[in-house]
Amino acid sequence: MLNPRPTSPELHVNLDALIANYSWFCAQAPNSKTGVALKANAYGIGMDAVGPALLEAGCTVFFVAHISEGVRLRRLLGSAPLIYVLHGAATGEVEVMLAHRLYPVLNSRPQIALWRNDGAGAPAALHVDTGMNRTGLPFAELPETKFDELNLQMIMSHLACAATPEHPLNEIQRDRFLQVTRQFPGIAASFCNSAGVLLGDEYHFDLTRIGIGLFGASPLHASLPPPPLTPVARIQAPIIQLKTVSKSETVGYGGTFCAPGAMQIAILAYGYADGLPRSVGATSFGWVGKTPTSILGRVSMDLTVVDVSQVKKPLEIGDHIEFLGPDLDAFAQSCNGEAYEILTSISPRVKRVYKREAS
Amino acid sequence: MLNPRPTSPELHVNLDALIANYSWFCAQAPNSKTGVALKANAYGIGMDAVGPALLEAGCTVFFVAHISEGVRLRRLLGSAPLIYVLHGAATGEVEVMLAHRLYPVLNSRPQIALWRNDGAGAPAALHVDTGMNRTGLPFAELPETKFDELNLQMIMSHLACAATPEHPLNEIQRDRFLQVTRQFPGIAASFCNSAGVLLGDEYHFDLTRIGIGLFGASPLHASLPPPPLTPVARIQAPIIQLKTVSKSETVGYGGTFCAPGAMQIAILAYGYADGLPRSVGATSFGWVGKTPTSILGRVSMDLTVVDVSQVKKPLEIGDHIEFLGPDLDAFAQSCNGEAYEILTSISPRVKRVYKREAS
Repeated sequence: MLNPRPTSPELHVNLDALIANYSWFCAQAPNSKTGVALKANAYGIGMDAVGPALLEAGCTVFFVAHISEGVRLRRLLGSAPLIYVLHGAATGEVEVMLAHRLYPVLNSRPQIALWRNDGAGAPAALHVDTGMNRTGLPFAELPETKFDELNLQMIMSHLACAATPEHPLNEIQRDRFLQVTRQFPGIAASFCNSAGVLLGDEYHFDLTRIGIGLFGASPLHASLPPPPLTPVARIQAPIIQLKTVSKSETVGYGGTFCAPGAMQIAILAYGYADGLPRSVGATSFGWVGKTPTSILGRVSMDLTVVDVSQVKKPLEIGDHIEFLGPDLDAFAQSCNGEAYEILTSISPRVKRVYKREAS
Repeated sequence: MLNPRPTSPELHVNLDALIANYSWFCAQAPNSKTGVALKANAYGIGMDAVGPALLEAGCTVFFVAHISEGVRLRRLLGSAPLIYVLHGAATGEVEVMLAHRLYPVLNSRPQIALWRNDGAGAPAALHVDTGMNRTGLPFAELPETKFDELNLQMIMSHLACAATPEHPLNEIQRDRFLQVTRQFPGIAASFCNSAGVLLGDEYHFDLTRIGIGLFGASPLHASLPPPPLTPVARIQAPIIQLKTVSKSETVGYGGTFCAPGAMQIAILAYGYADGLPRSVGATSFGWVGKTPTSILGRVSMDLTVVDVSQVKKPLEIGDHIEFLGPDLDAFAQSCNGEAYEILTSISPRVKRVYKREAS
């Protein structure tokens, strides 16, 4: 009897590649500390594996969005690293923050007041909105806001248009952020996400916050050449059935694909409930080695059909078709999307499998 | 001090509405048993709550896609109900299936051979592909396939185009399925998903498999009037910051939205990592009571900005904006998607909150 083979999709993660990408970003900003953003379950890749791997690689500053993510990360990393919670603290969360030594990013006067009153003098960061118009204390409110009795360890802002280096807002935001940092001398300043690091030294300040680049996707607009990052993630979608369709037969819901001739098809246990977007085009690719296959018809909730007529290697049930890798950005574009959303959409039904040669 | 209010998005599920929808489908096919498809974590709504609620409402036949889903559902439902695993059984899964009394849906000759050899005479279903060209024994292979030594409890097929009642494939599939059922007299026949039930009595056979309709979304093509189902799910996205943007300021990544004048905006702790598609349009709606708000600029991973200038009620941090409900189908269309994918994309970061008046 054959060994059991997976019947559900798996996400294979190369942690060595992830660390290589982290090191690459460290080298781009050698005079700054390189922090990482592991919100949204480390961009869908899995905080439980990614957090400890980055800690081991020397990372000491971590960012999450929600307090629940911070609590989980603290348990994974032990007491040493700094963990900032980007959404800040709300009423009722202060005790949990203090108990787990999570530092809130204070985004507004109400958050500042809350931490001043209830934060017991524990460290916090201040986020000033220099033009993103999302979270953060509005730049215009800075002069009239009081920061007394706060133990500020870090000042940050967030770039809106770093993916497009020539966008004028980048420099406008940088000029404003320089004014902010002058108001807080001696306090660490953090400005750059992955794309921001690529804008050059004058954007780096003291601490960066690398997210998407860790996972091998380009942080730049799709029209720009990507930085030399290493692919980290690929989906292995198992074949659960192989069959032939005849000329003029249709495939899948709505009968949207009509076979131009006899075709060999593979039915994969991988669908949009696993995170393969329904918007993926027929031009998209699942790979068998270096041979591309096309998706036929609509992606179903739990199943997808691909054309394997061109695959020379004899396929068997239990073999897999590979998605996402080797070019996550190209895959995302074929879905009319971005790598960010492709990664965070990988559902919990997809088993994460981590590979680490170093350990 | 105010009571703590959620700082993460919540999915509020009305289980009474779900049961009302189940009853509605039961009434449409009064001479058939009404089974339910709870794959993909009950279409994202949460198998742990949905399964027991439907059991209590009298449902006795359940369908899942993966064996792991079957194991989980068996633990939730106890030993009585039938649970069919649509993806069938693979090498190495037979013992688990037998141990949890999961019945595989046999989709191919290899699956038939496996169950014949290793299934210890336990019940199974046969899936014949009558034109979907996805899983299922090809209709053409039926005459030459042997079914001896199988304990078949159910024969099924799946409609490709039931969402479009006038599609000619519906009748072609039905004619083929009638031929299949003649070969298996006395064995229960199952043909219809939610949309199929709406095709009329001659499609109903012995057992239906209701999925999307349970959750209040129309199973029909968007151009057709929806059946009278009750909304089941809504997202409450908490406001974590309120601010004003001035005329000509841009909002969010890429600066894609430019304010035509001063606007009141709310920043929500709800982003595409929670399942709000990046493809959602500015024309989309989050609701404050009956007042719609528009999304401004791009949805971020963990945050979304909405225009609340038109909201008359004074908003506070901790208030929420409502998404998905009351018209899930309209919301899905605004995302260029379908309700199915909207539901299955709701991420585990979104807390499920269940309401049941009956209990």
